[in-house]
Amino acid sequence: MAPKPARSRSQAEKPTVKASVGAANGDDTVITALKLADAALTPAMQAYFDKCTEKLGFIPNVLKAYAFDMPKLEAFVAMYNDLMLAPSGLTKLEREMIAVAVSSHNRCYYCLTAHGAAVRGLSDDPVLGELMVMNYRAARLDRRQRAMLDFAVKLTAEPWGIEESDRKALRDVGFQDRDIWDIAAVAGFFNMSNRVASATDMRPNSIYHGQKRG
Amino acid sequence: MAPKPARSRSQAEKPTVKASVGAANGDDTVITALKLADAALTPAMQAYFDKCTEKLGFIPNVLKAYAFDMPKLEAFVAMYNDLMLAPSGLTKLEREMIAVAVSSHNRCYYCLTAHGAAVRGLSDDPVLGELMVMNYRAARLDRRQRAMLDFAVKLTAEPWGIEESDRKALRDVGFQDRDIWDIAAVAGFFNMSNRVASATDMRPNSIYHGQKRG
Amino acid sequence: MAPKPARSRSQAEKPTVKASVGAANGDDTVITALKLADAALTPAMQAYFDKCTEKLGFIPNVLKAYAFDMPKLEAFVAMYNDLMLAPSGLTKLEREMIAVAVSSHNRCYYCLTAHGAAVRGLSDDPVLGELMVMNYRAARLDRRQRAMLDFAVKLTAEPWGIEESDRKALRDVGFQDRDIWDIAAVAGFFNMSNRVASATDMRPNSIYHGQKRG
Amino acid sequence: MAPKPARSRSQAEKPTVKASVGAANGDDTVITALKLADAALTPAMQAYFDKCTEKLGFIPNVLKAYAFDMPKLEAFVAMYNDLMLAPSGLTKLEREMIAVAVSSHNRCYYCLTAHGAAVRGLSDDPVLGELMVMNYRAARLDRRQRAMLDFAVKLTAEPWGIEESDRKALRDVGFQDRDIWDIAAVAGFFNMSNRVASATDMRPNSIYHGQKRG
Amino acid sequence: MAPKPARSRSQAEKPTVKASVGAANGDDTVITALKLADAALTPAMQAYFDKCTEKLGFIPNVLKAYAFDMPKLEAFVAMYNDLMLAPSGLTKLEREMIAVAVSSHNRCYYCLTAHGAAVRGLSDDPVLGELMVMNYRAARLDRRQRAMLDFAVKLTAEPWGIEESDRKALRDVGFQDRDIWDIAAVAGFFNMSNRVASATDMRPNSIYHGQKRG
Amino acid sequence: MAPKPARSRSQAEKPTVKASVGAANGDDTVITALKLADAALTPAMQAYFDKCTEKLGFIPNVLKAYAFDMPKLEAFVAMYNDLMLAPSGLTKLEREMIAVAVSSHNRCYYCLTAHGAAVRGLSDDPVLGELMVMNYRAARLDRRQRAMLDFAVKLTAEPWGIEESDRKALRDVGFQDRDIWDIAAVAGFFNMSNRVASATDMRPNSIYHGQKRG
Repeated sequence: MAPKPARSRSQAEKPTVKASVGAANGDDTVITALKLADAALTPAMQAYFDKCTEKLGFIPNVLKAYAFDMPKLEAFVAMYNDLMLAPSGLTKLEREMIAVAVSSHNRCYYCLTAHGAAVRGLSDDPVLGELMVMNYRAARLDRRQRAMLDFAVKLTAEPWGIEESDRKALRDVGFQDRDIWDIAAVAGFFNMSNRVASATDMRPNSIYHGQKRG
Repeated sequence: MAPKPARSRSQAEKPTVKASVGAANGDDTVITALKLADAALTPAMQAYFDKCTEKLGFIPNVLKAYAFDMPKLEAFVAMYNDLMLAPSGLTKLEREMIAVAVSSHNRCYYCLTAHGAAVRGLSDDPVLGELMVMNYRAARLDRRQRAMLDFAVKLTAEPWGIEESDRKALRDVGFQDRDIWDIAAVAGFFNMSNRVASATDMRPNSIYHGQKRG
Repeated sequence: MAPKPARSRSQAEKPTVKASVGAANGDDTVITALKLADAALTPAMQAYFDKCTEKLGFIPNVLKAYAFDMPKLEAFVAMYNDLMLAPSGLTKLEREMIAVAVSSHNRCYYCLTAHGAAVRGLSDDPVLGELMVMNYRAARLDRRQRAMLDFAVKLTAEPWGIEESDRKALRDVGFQDRDIWDIAAVAGFFNMSNRVASATDMRPNSIYHGQKRG
Repeated sequence: MAPKPARSRSQAEKPTVKASVGAANGDDTVITALKLADAALTPAMQAYFDKCTEKLGFIPNVLKAYAFDMPKLEAFVAMYNDLMLAPSGLTKLEREMIAVAVSSHNRCYYCLTAHGAAVRGLSDDPVLGELMVMNYRAARLDRRQRAMLDFAVKLTAEPWGIEESDRKALRDVGFQDRDIWDIAAVAGFFNMSNRVASATDMRPNSIYHGQKRG
Repeated sequence: MAPKPARSRSQAEKPTVKASVGAANGDDTVITALKLADAALTPAMQAYFDKCTEKLGFIPNVLKAYAFDMPKLEAFVAMYNDLMLAPSGLTKLEREMIAVAVSSHNRCYYCLTAHGAAVRGLSDDPVLGELMVMNYRAARLDRRQRAMLDFAVKLTAEPWGIEESDRKALRDVGFQDRDIWDIAAVAGFFNMSNRVASATDMRPNSIYHGQKRG
Repeated sequence: MAPKPARSRSQAEKPTVKASVGAANGDDTVITALKLADAALTPAMQAYFDKCTEKLGFIPNVLKAYAFDMPKLEAFVAMYNDLMLAPSGLTKLEREMIAVAVSSHNRCYYCLTAHGAAVRGLSDDPVLGELMVMNYRAARLDRRQRAMLDFAVKLTAEPWGIEESDRKALRDVGFQDRDIWDIAAVAGFFNMSNRVASATDMRPNSIYHGQKRG
């Protein structure tokens, strides 16, 4: 692959996102601590990026971070979209709540910012997003959602300790086996993403911070 | 003391704060999980509450939570105001940054909400507040502020391990002995307040969430 | 404020406390690792120090450590005396037991020494003080005191995990809401004091070590 | 999708793997604790399963576990094969070493078994696999591989604490930025897989245990 | 005692153990990181070493490591043989299972290797040994053995938290008081041995790795 | 063995130790939570017990606890006496300091009481014993003793993390390889004893508490 200018120095989207000042300064332009030259987008990925720009007004930085290598980007996008958007016994909001509660345990700046905004947006409840970021135990959740997050956070903190009694606690509040898979898979995915983001100092698009604040 | 209606059921300030819906629902009316009848405010405390209403537009819930007992409220107010507002080698913003970084370690909903808003306001930088809530290590801080927060968070996480080398790290970036006291005292204070808040399920005024979001 | 000789080099009380040899050597003269000049005592604080000398025979080093700044000293004294001495559903001994169990978790030399002596004195039981220092779980406590210390120590170790079930455990052994506040407030206070002491290497008056040993 | 017999009760491969007795009894037939009906394999996945049978003599249980849903299976396979088999500055053995060291921290029975066997096979060194399972710090590694595993395990244990100094330690032993990505991505992937496996009690094919024992 | 060549450079047994290559290289010749000259074996210890050679075909490295001092070697052998071989309500296999589960918590290369082989041998079940090394919670154990290991591992991880309820859990599955002593004593012994081995980088005889692999 | 009255109900030594009241009540008569009948003392052990009575005025409860089985008692006594009393590069006081610092990490009531008294006695410094119990980091130790305790406590807290650099830190302050063994062996021994004591709720002779208090 012919080396290209690193995505981190890319100017392409500057017109759509105003330069941030303050603590987010640079977050929109230097996306990770690694200097990796952008690969040429495949047609599928170009279409996906175009769709992001059209629907969101920007391309999430995580996608730009993966764009140095098309197979990696495509695998990430395929898994992410299946987990977070495909039909499931969990609502999209519930999946985002898991994402944020897991990311809170792992204290991941990128994921807390991007998915905190998603919780605020999907719930139309700015404070619910804050609670997932700060301490999900302080939220007034129904038994189902509380059991879901307890499982996801225990799986994050001490995966070696998950046993049948933990699965039973999910079944007791109505989750099916397929739902248990989905809880585990979303929690697992963010345990992966939190670590890729932390390892590379990935920075979230600054636009997330102000979204859906009420 | 003659029993009075518990502060948590008090209607007095309703006019100034709209009822919240969503996850913060009830946070402005049922302030803690404990039913403690309000004591009569002393003149000094009445004046202080009036000043809060005048300057902030509301009375911080922590003050209402302590208002079941005037000596406790007065001691809390005296210590808080001295630590956070009196002259110090630390700026008010730095003291609030310590407050939030400590509260993040302890995952305290009340303090992260109230003092996160304070960091946003004093810095005029909404993202700085988010970073203190999420993971102060991800913020781009100068060496002085980074050393300050490293000390405060180590003191929070493993106070038994603080030694001369930790104090030296503060002196190496220019802090004086009086500043070291102030860092310790602010970090210590929020280790206290986080625990009083968590023990009582103290809820922050919902108005904080939207403040200074940019 | 005109600089004065640092309290840590003060000679004032030497006549009443014999010079220690061994591991406590210097604990009575160099009270903290910070060089902070004593402020002039306010009349109220002078009276309080005089009362300490009269009743205890010495001034607790924590008071000398705070004496570089009168508002800080006064706030500390006001809060301490309210918490530990004012009327409460908890006995003074119970409050000291919380102080020591919390300080044991945090391994605070100053507080374990000073408040370990207080437990020995108030209980007239030298071993009870030792047990609070070493491992409160090994003490033969009644259900009420055991629940009280379990709450205080969990609040110390993982404040984010305190929930309604923890408060219920206190109510189940007879504690009222006001008592729950007091348990939380005392545990919180020593989580503060442990950290101020550890941050500054505060040394306890050597006289405590031998007090009330039976 | 028409319900089919759950993969966990599938008889299809029995001829190629003898029934285990002892602690692995059932590991080849009841693959997870969840009852999820197999989906029809897509042609691509059928071809992939056939290739596994041809090259390995069996189908890894993790693939059967994902086979209840083709998009999930395909996303998993795509990401796994890219990470572990595509060209990289890390050898395949190094990637497997990361897999096992991460899985050791998380104490994941499935991944330690399957990837422990992979380390034994790729290195032709049975003891290297054991060391990755037991404690990678006890292995006599060169500086490069030791730094690689230190990063991966710190990223696993405390992702919030990874900073530029950690990346520098990798660069100091010769890793390029692309290599750092790969270390992070492999470590991240197994933090995901460990959790999916632990959440579902996924059981490894019993054949792994005896492979490449020397 | 006349200095002799350090056991670590001893050539005596080379004929019976082939030189290892790979990760175990050197484990049979440089047994610890400490250079301690062998003492002359007492007649009792000479007889014991001879018996090891006769029955096992080799002398376990831990014995060679202790052989710099006869009283230490004799005390270790006496305690080990009593605990692991004398009559007990626990089978020899159960005692080895405790040994490995404890050593897994402590991630001790020596003990996991030597006693993992013992579990494989005594149980005639290679996978049971692997499960004890990797995560005993993933093994399909009966209630008695599970309770036994839960107690041993809790005693390892947080000895301060063992209380009457933990002993009751053992009694509830049929253990007598003498059995509880034996569980505690074996768990305690390996908490000692794990630490002596880790402190000295003790290396297991390479022959263990391939033993009883099925 | 013919059942005999359990040692815990034994009356034999009552004349020499006055009944305790308060928190130590019963510690001299019900020594553990296990009911194990005393075995007949062997002549060697009878002589040893007689010697304890003669030199100490009492028999340490740990010996009575082991006295249900002579081989166990003899093995314990042999190992203990070798480690703590035989010639070593470590003084007897240093070995007791390790005992207490390790027992402090593990919060063992029995060992902190008995060996805390030993530190006070051997050092003729009551406060040194207190510091080992409370937080050895707060003691003013020379570099050698500090390095010794740092090694012992790290070996206690995270034995998997001990490496050559830790041994080097001991050599840098003058310890020989034989001394390193002794530090490890004493630290290891108390990691065993702490767990046997905690598992059985072993109670220290009440006489220790008041010994050598200055």
